[in-house]
Amino acid sequence: MTPTPAAAERTRTPSATRASTMKAVVKATRGPGAEIREVPVPTAGPGELLLRVLRAGVCGTDLHIYAWDRWSEGRMHPPVTLGHEFVGEIVERGAQVTQFELGERVSCESHVICNVCLACRTGNGHVCENTRILGVDLNGGFAEYVAVPASNAWRAPANVPLEVAGVMEPLGNAVHTAFSGPLSACSIAVTGCGPIGLFAIGVARAAGATCVIASDVSPYRLDLARRMQADVVIDVSRENFVERVKAATGGHGVDGVLEMSGNPDAMRDGLSALRMGGRLSLLGLPKEPFDLDWNRLLIFKGITLHGIIGRRMYETWYQMDQLLRSGRLDIRPAITHVMPMEKFEEAIALLQSGNAGKVVLVPWGAEG
Amino acid sequence: MTPTPAAAERTRTPSATRASTMKAVVKATRGPGAEIREVPVPTAGPGELLLRVLRAGVCGTDLHIYAWDRWSEGRMHPPVTLGHEFVGEIVERGAQVTQFELGERVSCESHVICNVCLACRTGNGHVCENTRILGVDLNGGFAEYVAVPASNAWRAPANVPLEVAGVMEPLGNAVHTAFSGPLSACSIAVTGCGPIGLFAIGVARAAGATCVIASDVSPYRLDLARRMQADVVIDVSRENFVERVKAATGGHGVDGVLEMSGNPDAMRDGLSALRMGGRLSLLGLPKEPFDLDWNRLLIFKGITLHGIIGRRMYETWYQMDQLLRSGRLDIRPAITHVMPMEKFEEAIALLQSGNAGKVVLVPWGAEG
Amino acid sequence: MTPTPAAAERTRTPSATRASTMKAVVKATRGPGAEIREVPVPTAGPGELLLRVLRAGVCGTDLHIYAWDRWSEGRMHPPVTLGHEFVGEIVERGAQVTQFELGERVSCESHVICNVCLACRTGNGHVCENTRILGVDLNGGFAEYVAVPASNAWRAPANVPLEVAGVMEPLGNAVHTAFSGPLSACSIAVTGCGPIGLFAIGVARAAGATCVIASDVSPYRLDLARRMQADVVIDVSRENFVERVKAATGGHGVDGVLEMSGNPDAMRDGLSALRMGGRLSLLGLPKEPFDLDWNRLLIFKGITLHGIIGRRMYETWYQMDQLLRSGRLDIRPAITHVMPMEKFEEAIALLQSGNAGKVVLVPWGAEG
Amino acid sequence: MTPTPAAAERTRTPSATRASTMKAVVKATRGPGAEIREVPVPTAGPGELLLRVLRAGVCGTDLHIYAWDRWSEGRMHPPVTLGHEFVGEIVERGAQVTQFELGERVSCESHVICNVCLACRTGNGHVCENTRILGVDLNGGFAEYVAVPASNAWRAPANVPLEVAGVMEPLGNAVHTAFSGPLSACSIAVTGCGPIGLFAIGVARAAGATCVIASDVSPYRLDLARRMQADVVIDVSRENFVERVKAATGGHGVDGVLEMSGNPDAMRDGLSALRMGGRLSLLGLPKEPFDLDWNRLLIFKGITLHGIIGRRMYETWYQMDQLLRSGRLDIRPAITHVMPMEKFEEAIALLQSGNAGKVVLVPWGAEG
Repeated sequence: MTPTPAAAERTRTPSATRASTMKAVVKATRGPGAEIREVPVPTAGPGELLLRVLRAGVCGTDLHIYAWDRWSEGRMHPPVTLGHEFVGEIVERGAQVTQFELGERVSCESHVICNVCLACRTGNGHVCENTRILGVDLNGGFAEYVAVPASNAWRAPANVPLEVAGVMEPLGNAVHTAFSGPLSACSIAVTGCGPIGLFAIGVARAAGATCVIASDVSPYRLDLARRMQADVVIDVSRENFVERVKAATGGHGVDGVLEMSGNPDAMRDGLSALRMGGRLSLLGLPKEPFDLDWNRLLIFKGITLHGIIGRRMYETWYQMDQLLRSGRLDIRPAITHVMPMEKFEEAIALLQSGNAGKVVLVPWGAEG
Repeated sequence: MTPTPAAAERTRTPSATRASTMKAVVKATRGPGAEIREVPVPTAGPGELLLRVLRAGVCGTDLHIYAWDRWSEGRMHPPVTLGHEFVGEIVERGAQVTQFELGERVSCESHVICNVCLACRTGNGHVCENTRILGVDLNGGFAEYVAVPASNAWRAPANVPLEVAGVMEPLGNAVHTAFSGPLSACSIAVTGCGPIGLFAIGVARAAGATCVIASDVSPYRLDLARRMQADVVIDVSRENFVERVKAATGGHGVDGVLEMSGNPDAMRDGLSALRMGGRLSLLGLPKEPFDLDWNRLLIFKGITLHGIIGRRMYETWYQMDQLLRSGRLDIRPAITHVMPMEKFEEAIALLQSGNAGKVVLVPWGAEG
Repeated sequence: MTPTPAAAERTRTPSATRASTMKAVVKATRGPGAEIREVPVPTAGPGELLLRVLRAGVCGTDLHIYAWDRWSEGRMHPPVTLGHEFVGEIVERGAQVTQFELGERVSCESHVICNVCLACRTGNGHVCENTRILGVDLNGGFAEYVAVPASNAWRAPANVPLEVAGVMEPLGNAVHTAFSGPLSACSIAVTGCGPIGLFAIGVARAAGATCVIASDVSPYRLDLARRMQADVVIDVSRENFVERVKAATGGHGVDGVLEMSGNPDAMRDGLSALRMGGRLSLLGLPKEPFDLDWNRLLIFKGITLHGIIGRRMYETWYQMDQLLRSGRLDIRPAITHVMPMEKFEEAIALLQSGNAGKVVLVPWGAEG
Repeated sequence: MTPTPAAAERTRTPSATRASTMKAVVKATRGPGAEIREVPVPTAGPGELLLRVLRAGVCGTDLHIYAWDRWSEGRMHPPVTLGHEFVGEIVERGAQVTQFELGERVSCESHVICNVCLACRTGNGHVCENTRILGVDLNGGFAEYVAVPASNAWRAPANVPLEVAGVMEPLGNAVHTAFSGPLSACSIAVTGCGPIGLFAIGVARAAGATCVIASDVSPYRLDLARRMQADVVIDVSRENFVERVKAATGGHGVDGVLEMSGNPDAMRDGLSALRMGGRLSLLGLPKEPFDLDWNRLLIFKGITLHGIIGRRMYETWYQMDQLLRSGRLDIRPAITHVMPMEKFEEAIALLQSGNAGKVVLVPWGAEG
């Protein structure tokens, strides 16, 4: 597949006019905070694409990095440009890249994997032993431009708005979690209505769940859950989760639980609310170890529990693509804010307040 | 679970007032036709239920029995009351039946299985080696009353209309076929838009397929396919199936095919239209053996092919229950005629004409 | 299938000569201990078989019942004849039983299930909501005779010795645990070498595991593990489990862990020793709730965890039958003691000492 | 991973002393035959390895190419060096290759895939839409040296002899076919005892099948089947396949069939011999389309049929690695001839005679 003359034309033009530096949100030093800096525009190495970033999502992980928590301290090596959720337009193709054209819009998988470890070679690249993450280990997408391996790019469905294409990475977490067990004709509970939980409500519905139950403690988030069309919404600060789930499922319990909160009680309640032989898929990261009554909650009920991380590469993207392209899935109610990347600090504050779903940033010059 | 006084009351009353004979559509002799006769009302043996039939569906198999084709001749032992799709109200419970109450409405699995063969004991009762079928090997539901094993009864969802509850058996064929492979976020083609094909369109949609393609040669049936909300409808008498499927799936082909026609070309086209690694589930019964280019259509593409019969007992019923109870699935557009059982011959003629979807019969006195 | 005259003859004879009472090991009162008593010989009700017990296994659960721990106190209603693992000869068939002949030897599933709850109807009878267990809720097999539902009987493979046929119930636990995930060409670790762990070593090997690793702290049990042909045996009181497993698996970790000990550290070590994307199947019952570093051990590694109870009814029995019948599986090294049922107290003491694998009892008069 | 000085040393030395041309078996022109020629030694491009070939297997496909059948005529573009099954020693590493060391012995996947089509991106690289095959579309291993993508190389288990490492590609076909359905505790029939069928007997046994049945018409091949330890061997020229299979499986039929012959009757017999709900995996390529009684053989029995091609990349290789490394699988009885590559014509004649299992060639200078 060679670029058409028109496409080649487009290549040349931006390349010629592109400035040598750009603005980016950079974790500059080993400590709290992040700053907007002028940094060099990257180039597309062999097998890479250079993207002009159009939209980028802010993630809970970005809050941890901003706060410089223990995990960040142990993992990161500043300076690093932040941002692991984004969509961009291809402005340059490195050597050996033939599967994309200049000008195409692609969303990106954030895990850059080794392709040679056992996990990678046996279809489990999402748990690659040598993963490096864009915006954490490698420069990310909170910038005007970002360079990514072409193998990490996925053509954005033409029908979805840019802010949706910009958050396919976390949407993929929701898809991966939901699709790790049966969904069709199933009752599914989503515990925790942060952005990925909210996405999961929509995913479960679009993927054929016949009853989607959502729980949280925040009235703001429960309202978003309703707007994502959860069939049952439970405020666990006031209501008994297990009783309400049983009532909604003919007394049997749910077929599956998608645990998105990392909260020990949510997980225990989720297991209690499962029907015999059900499954719980665990994406939410607990802050610390916690105990479980294994016999009663798991063994005697014949439960299957899935630990979930990342996205299957790229089965999850194919599923997500079909959900979005068909129009069956609409996650816009969960995207509550779209704001200039320049206001990155404001986005952080907003997320810290809890009164936001997904927040999407628009880089400098990408407002169109 | 013991009957409440009220329920016990209800038992006694109908039993006392029930006539000793009833009207039934009976295959009376070894030859074409069937007749409406006065026959004894059955009683509920140990482990059985006696149902007052409320609605009953007419199936293609009933046409074969009516015409007394070779299969019927080899299998049936008249006199037998016809009808293997029906819903009824429980009017009598045999000894050892505690899981149902008098007055409940139940739809029925038609396969009466042995529970002791290897298939039965390993979760494959739908291919029991000793199956007897209601309305074929045992007296069926084209009558005022029918006796069935309580284990074959499934509580009809309260929200579905009687004519829908009356055809859960063939709907279960559609569910079993569809659920024999992935559905969520999949593109699915249904080849053949008879009643079960039409049901399958609705099932695939409700179960999370993101693109449902239907094909047939009859304008009447293609119109019903549209009313069942197929995303793409293909008239294979005028259009190229494979090309249209490819166009609807980004050039890749469909993830799954549900073959409902028994037509050799439909199966070959279905295999051609599958993406690499897809699945074809085969419920339609070919009239006679036919050949296949195995290498090109199946092996080189890494296809999986499922032979489907009956319904998984009772996983399929549980799935169907949730699809109907939730309201996600509405098969009413495929039920084109509801008529008195007295007009059985007319129903047969209607089905033979091809200008009908599912035809449902109302027994004498069950019009309410 | 009707009994041949010879078989009928056999029926009549024992029935005529059978005494009206028999010896049995009975939990007589709500407190520690159990006693050998003379009790009435049961009869085979409708759908039941009366068995002359030939061999019966003693289980850890029997120790709990003997000690009258909290679980026993909450569950049991003495007097109850103990024993839920046994093989017997059919000496009487109740009404409606046609699938067995008098004189056949059958091993028995201990879970008597309801067949009407959702779990039962969807192929998950092993987690039936209304299970009653032979030897716990119903009179069991520590007796000269026992009555069982015919549906719970499984023809014992002719080639296996009686003491093996007598412990197919706990062997089935091992099979169910092992078969809850991939085995063929897999490395499998078994943590805990009690009788079921020892069985699991043999099952994993016979079922195609290419490396079977066993761990325990008891030199006696580790020696039995070696005799069951574990490829690697780890004494976790002296050796680092995770390091040794990694060394035995090319540094990757094992594909699967079968957790048989209920020990928190065994489970944590098992999870640490799994390769990315592996599975842990959990049969061992922890004494109390314990915590886990969910992120590191489960989520980041994409692990699947299965809670296991009972045996799939009856897929597990079919698998076990083929393993035994083929001679691929030989569990005799794990059966360390066969002794008269009269010495029940001695068997209990032996098991409490820890210096026993599986202990099998021979009822009065069944020595042949 | 960078080469140690010692390894780098080794690199340099062979490179310096290596001749610029080598001997190879080349399909030189568009017509029957092949010839031994002096051709340039290839070099390792970016991401590639240069191997000194140690052993290479001759495949049925090589016979088709030699005979220049219609398939070859439609696909090949001579001149091409033949040979798609081989093991070699790494003598040169191209740019970007870090996962292997010089001097390592690797066996090779023959399918060079695109990594960008839908099949490749969703874990189905074995049905890549753009596959190129070594020895067919690209120069292969019937030569002193061959260049391969490093991603196609798999470290040969140290314990297996060179002739076994040389045929891991066709062994992988057997593993892929066998592992496409359940094996543990299953009865498995292998229809067709060519080299891949013979391998499949060993694979099924090592992977936990409890009864392996083999069929063919050639006494020579049936004898090899016995040496591969098939439990039952059926000469279908003299014996009734279905009857013998039923007799060997308690009357139920086999759990799975691995069809390796491409013979229509073998496939029909295989389907007839399956138990209800069994699976047939189809690797053998029929010479032309043939018909099937779909209803009786597939639908009424609820059979699943898998079309198989290539090897899962690289799950199959991981499974094969563990089978070989553990010593559970020994395919040496199926390798009947090891001969100099110089005698290529003799190897072709031998295979055409039918009196050979797998034939392995030793390149010039690789006798050590």
